[in-house]
Amino acid sequence: MLGQWISIEVKSATGKTTPAQQSFLDQVNAAGGRAFAAPTDVREEQEVRALFDALESEHGAVQVAVFNAGANFRAPIQDTPADMFEKLWRLGCYAGFLFGREAARRMAPRGQGTILFTGATASIRGGAQFAAFAAAKNGLRAVAQSMARELGPKGIHVAHVVIDGMIDTAAVRSRFPERVKDLGPDALLDTGAIAELYYQIHAQPRSAWTFEADLRPCGEKF
Amino acid sequence: MLGQWISIEVKSATGKTTPAQQSFLDQVNAAGGRAFAAPTDVREEQEVRALFDALESEHGAVQVAVFNAGANFRAPIQDTPADMFEKLWRLGCYAGFLFGREAARRMAPRGQGTILFTGATASIRGGAQFAAFAAAKNGLRAVAQSMARELGPKGIHVAHVVIDGMIDTAAVRSRFPERVKDLGPDALLDTGAIAELYYQIHAQPRSAWTFEADLRPCGEKF
Amino acid sequence: MLGQWISIEVKSATGKTTPAQQSFLDQVNAAGGRAFAAPTDVREEQEVRALFDALESEHGAVQVAVFNAGANFRAPIQDTPADMFEKLWRLGCYAGFLFGREAARRMAPRGQGTILFTGATASIRGGAQFAAFAAAKNGLRAVAQSMARELGPKGIHVAHVVIDGMIDTAAVRSRFPERVKDLGPDALLDTGAIAELYYQIHAQPRSAWTFEADLRPCGEKF
Amino acid sequence: MLGQWISIEVKSATGKTTPAQQSFLDQVNAAGGRAFAAPTDVREEQEVRALFDALESEHGAVQVAVFNAGANFRAPIQDTPADMFEKLWRLGCYAGFLFGREAARRMAPRGQGTILFTGATASIRGGAQFAAFAAAKNGLRAVAQSMARELGPKGIHVAHVVIDGMIDTAAVRSRFPERVKDLGPDALLDTGAIAELYYQIHAQPRSAWTFEADLRPCGEKF
Repeated sequence: MLGQWISIEVKSATGKTTPAQQSFLDQVNAAGGRAFAAPTDVREEQEVRALFDALESEHGAVQVAVFNAGANFRAPIQDTPADMFEKLWRLGCYAGFLFGREAARRMAPRGQGTILFTGATASIRGGAQFAAFAAAKNGLRAVAQSMARELGPKGIHVAHVVIDGMIDTAAVRSRFPERVKDLGPDALLDTGAIAELYYQIHAQPRSAWTFEADLRPCGEKF
Repeated sequence: MLGQWISIEVKSATGKTTPAQQSFLDQVNAAGGRAFAAPTDVREEQEVRALFDALESEHGAVQVAVFNAGANFRAPIQDTPADMFEKLWRLGCYAGFLFGREAARRMAPRGQGTILFTGATASIRGGAQFAAFAAAKNGLRAVAQSMARELGPKGIHVAHVVIDGMIDTAAVRSRFPERVKDLGPDALLDTGAIAELYYQIHAQPRSAWTFEADLRPCGEKF
Repeated sequence: MLGQWISIEVKSATGKTTPAQQSFLDQVNAAGGRAFAAPTDVREEQEVRALFDALESEHGAVQVAVFNAGANFRAPIQDTPADMFEKLWRLGCYAGFLFGREAARRMAPRGQGTILFTGATASIRGGAQFAAFAAAKNGLRAVAQSMARELGPKGIHVAHVVIDGMIDTAAVRSRFPERVKDLGPDALLDTGAIAELYYQIHAQPRSAWTFEADLRPCGEKF
Repeated sequence: MLGQWISIEVKSATGKTTPAQQSFLDQVNAAGGRAFAAPTDVREEQEVRALFDALESEHGAVQVAVFNAGANFRAPIQDTPADMFEKLWRLGCYAGFLFGREAARRMAPRGQGTILFTGATASIRGGAQFAAFAAAKNGLRAVAQSMARELGPKGIHVAHVVIDGMIDTAAVRSRFPERVKDLGPDALLDTGAIAELYYQIHAQPRSAWTFEADLRPCGEKF
């Protein structure tokens, strides 16, 4: 459907693409699409700027920019280290601002483009023991709202998807094997179904744009 | 995409299908689908029950039920007649409850089905001079939320779509000709785009269901 | 603090004041205040109008009007009778509209007055098995919001208090004796503390009005 | 009412108390209370920790901690500098976390205390051109919510007050003289009325705690 996918990842210690990421890229390429990784530390203004510059000069105008970075942390407020609070914000909120702003700077003059942000339940609720995560996710949602209100009239579609539940990835299955086993079928969010919603939002005509949609497994309590 | 469409309308004084409705049905039928109207006063429990009974006995299990009835009214609170307040609730909220309940009664034993409710900005905000409309729409949203929480684990997908803006219909164009003329392109919600979202929500797999999505023209202030 | 209190109750079958109500009135009167009951079916437009007419002609301008009527009902959506859905709305939402409108009609020309509505968690959330209650309470909140936006600039203070938890009344203690016993101290909302908040909101100067405040026992989960 | 007030201010370049702050302190002291300033950079973990340590060792247990720091910034998203985005977060959200956490660490073992956070409309809405401010304020509200849920059962009252409107200070009057002149009476939030609400929330008994209340001038649009 889309000509090419670019997977942007937070630079790891090695600066290398992980096997899971490489597998995704291989699948897209094998299916006739075109995908590649552009390892970038999205918390660094210069890197985000350089990323967009490189993409646009080498591959043409970015049409869709999806921000999906983030990390979680759970602890009582008294036991939440200040640097952890900052770390979650820097990756989950500040990087989203940098990423969204750079996308907006390039899309606004062209009067078109889609910028998508990934949210969570913590985007709209500060749960016990999740002060750091909720602060980052609430902040990111505020950035998305503000951008949507500003950029919609300029032809840029900004949306925020609230993912409520565990996502069906190899990482989740290996980290929570028993919890996954206890769950019935359809209890983990299928990544293809998530991607489908993102694509549908991108494909909406200008007369009917979604700013926010939630997404959860049918049996998820909410 | 769907085998047959059934258009359920509030019974008019004449009990007849309007030209606009008939035109819609003709289009679907001409395109190879199958559509027909089943004029029903959705504010009457017996009629709603009879409607679902007739549909299921004559056409098979209802797979998707879309509730779209409603009326608006604008006036200062002091000038809002009590019977108008009740009328808006009866059509916009009570009928939605009846319709949703009858759908749920038939879908729950089968463990599948989709029930969609149409909301508005007034579903989440009580604006000045819109007490009656907002009370009805907030109430309908509460019914949808309650049903989604109850029926999701039973395999029934309940969703609520918040339509924020004027819809591009012949009625709107003839009632507000000047207002429409002043608007730029894409300022009225395209009905096809709305239908597309409803269909997408219905088509979601069980592992990734949307409860609520909003929809507005790109330039709409919110 | 206030010169006189008027307790307005839904007319019971007997049309008489209950012992609990009488006890409240006696306490106020014994403390040097002035309180009396004016049994009224707040679901009847004529009765609400007659109530305000009688109060104003016999006792002077109403300064504060508190709406507190309501009933609850819990059942799966499929088992929720249509007349129960309507009954909860009529008492919990429609009556609030009638009551608020009649208060507004008298207060607006005078440019002052306070109208307070009592909400619940169901005012902002449609929980499973509470479709009827949530529809009524969400609707009432919408009425309150709409009125606050309209009437604030006219000098009428409209507010909505979200009560989240069980209230410490004789009725609650006799109906849920075991549940109350299991709870620790401070687990039931003290009625005096609720009244204090209502009074504080009424006493706010025009430059600083609260529209909404919640209230819950310290240990209540939310 | 309270034995002593401590005014904590972000350390200015000079590290000195401003005339407005000194005037406030003088008023409290002249009225028989006891107030003093403890200039602290609330963005620095060590300083916040040292502040609470000093207060508790010299003056006894902190009973109420009010967080009120913050800065605003308005610009299109494309023109929002990354360091400004960070600066607003550091003062408006991160400092609130540090301050709240240090208060919680001391209050939790004692099972009592009140922690109050000041919010704004941007706490619940990301308006156009306010991405940085809204991200900080939404984040702070998430921290407050998370803390309230965790600490309520431990006897610590955490609340968040949404201030919607301009506050009547000398600074506002000198910066927006024409705007203030155009406004009618009661159009600026009276600081005494704000303080009154904070005090009322602190004084609530454990059976009836408010987590969130809004506050706006009667004529403020919302």
